Amino acid sequence: MRYLAIDVGGTSTRAAVVDEHGNCAGYSVAGSGNPTSSDPDSAAASIISAGLAAMAEAGSTPGDVARGVIGIAGATRETGDWLLAEVVRAGLPKRLTLEPDLLAAYHSGSLAADGYALVAGTGAAAVRIRGGRIEATRDGLGWLLGDAGSGFWIGHCAVRAATSALDDRGPPTVLVSRILALSGGSAPTEELDRYGRLADVRRIMDDVYRGRPVELARFAPLVFEAADTGDDVARGILADAADALATTLAAVVVADIAGPLVLAGSILSQRAAVAEGVIRSFSAGGHPPVVTVPDGLVGAAVMALRDHGVPVTDDVFDRLRASLTAQP
Amino acid sequence: MRYLAIDVGGTSTRAAVVDEHGNCAGYSVAGSGNPTSSDPDSAAASIISAGLAAMAEAGSTPGDVARGVIGIAGATRETGDWLLAEVVRAGLPKRLTLEPDLLAAYHSGSLAADGYALVAGTGAAAVRIRGGRIEATRDGLGWLLGDAGSGFWIGHCAVRAATSALDDRGPPTVLVSRILALSGGSAPTEELDRYGRLADVRRIMDDVYRGRPVELARFAPLVFEAADTGDDVARGILADAADALATTLAAVVVADIAGPLVLAGSILSQRAAVAEGVIRSFSAGGHPPVVTVPDGLVGAAVMALRDHGVPVTDDVFDRLRASLTAQP
Repeated sequence: MRYLAIDVGGTSTRAAVVDEHGNCAGYSVAGSGNPTSSDPDSAAASIISAGLAAMAEAGSTPGDVARGVIGIAGATRETGDWLLAEVVRAGLPKRLTLEPDLLAAYHSGSLAADGYALVAGTGAAAVRIRGGRIEATRDGLGWLLGDAGSGFWIGHCAVRAATSALDDRGPPTVLVSRILALSGGSAPTEELDRYGRLADVRRIMDDVYRGRPVELARFAPLVFEAADTGDDVARGILADAADALATTLAAVVVADIAGPLVLAGSILSQRAAVAEGVIRSFSAGGHPPVVTVPDGLVGAAVMALRDHGVPVTDDVFDRLRASLTAQP
Repeated sequence: MRYLAIDVGGTSTRAAVVDEHGNCAGYSVAGSGNPTSSDPDSAAASIISAGLAAMAEAGSTPGDVARGVIGIAGATRETGDWLLAEVVRAGLPKRLTLEPDLLAAYHSGSLAADGYALVAGTGAAAVRIRGGRIEATRDGLGWLLGDAGSGFWIGHCAVRAATSALDDRGPPTVLVSRILALSGGSAPTEELDRYGRLADVRRIMDDVYRGRPVELARFAPLVFEAADTGDDVARGILADAADALATTLAAVVVADIAGPLVLAGSILSQRAAVAEGVIRSFSAGGHPPVVTVPDGLVGAAVMALRDHGVPVTDDVFDRLRASLTAQP
């Protein structure tokens, strides 16, 4: 039998068809499918496109696929029901379940029934897992209310630090020249507008207000680069991000569950600076295992197998991780 | 001769027809006319509506009005030219000039050629005035990049403090019950959703994400009320707002201009808590005069008279302030 796993993210949607031994038979990537950061129509389109391509590569028909799990953020019952009907109508298998992206991320990193997951990509949230299900969720409140320590949050701090520096309201930082290069393609100038404001400030404003707020996450990589060069402002932003994520994680921790902790999302999985601060804070009370995963694709496969009664042994799990992590 | 003064704000647009002695002959209020927080069409409509009503009350035709000044934020040359053409076509007098709202605010409070103005309403910015014109501007970068200490900024801090408290990520605050009452019309509950998050958090999220971000300024009055009851979180937000505004003001201060300082906008003119902190910080280096004004309407009238060569004496200024401040 075959199983379909789909992981829907803010920047891309990945789909894989696997067998009961954990071997990957088909894999595909499509665009962003998060219904909270784009519209439900484009979420459905991304899921359909990635799912059908992975099935085609595996030579699977909807009837071959015993079960499927889609890991996705922010789906309400209403949008979830609509989304499932839509993707099944387009040719995905009928026995599909939507699960929270945070649960998929946890199962990507651990087979343990109890533990924690902390995800920081464009957004940020923490969950406590008990008996394989989510028992508590903290943050994940979106760019305007929370997502403290996320890619959006770091990018927002960066662009405010740069404009404050240009505006004589904050300390100098190399983020000014890096953000100007990325947002306007220009080097800093001394040019003033007719009301005595630096024209560079207006250039950044025009660029930032033209896009959606969550797109500020594109500035997050600049902060890691600037911190590597020793920039104090950038280092301060990353230290604050680690503190914020540690606070979010601490809000789900209870005495009777020591760990494991699964870390996921680009901010925690691609660079060390923030993850190290979070792990230091989490490990202060003991040494539970900490696992970093790129996304929830393995976890979606784990849940699909288990939903069909297939035991996911350490061997199967290792094979899933190896075969899916090797994909581009 | 008659003169037309219009002050365009984020919440209302006020228009007055005055004579050369500073007496008000006609007055009217219309809706928001700020082209940065609503569309240029509705800005034009508010200006036309308020202007025509004030002229009608004064019994003035476009030909009777020697000069007019419109104080408005964020008008570029392009939107400004379009706006002037539009309002003249609708029956406002031909000799109209657009001026920055910050300049109008300054002239509402002082006849001195040199000084400073700090405005904190929905947004926040500071200007240095030399020879009656703006020499330098700081902040005013809008809700996503700046406006530190503004009504939006205070409301944003408040709603994040409330959701953090509900989310076990921040200290308790009476802002929780006050924001729930205003945004959802409900008292706090202990109800959890299926992922172990308080349903009250979702109520606030649903309310906040439904509106435009700048509408968070509606929570600012709750912070002043909560601070009055001794709430530490609310007091901290107002202290941070005062610090941020003092930093913005300090960025325009130069050694050869001691003052005066004109304070304007609802955050500084309607409640004392934030203004006191700003004045304390500004007055640390001396005792220049500080004047608080409700808006830029008097200043727009001052500029209209001066544009026509009418000297604005202390007597005329006092009459303008008395007759326009008496309006509802």
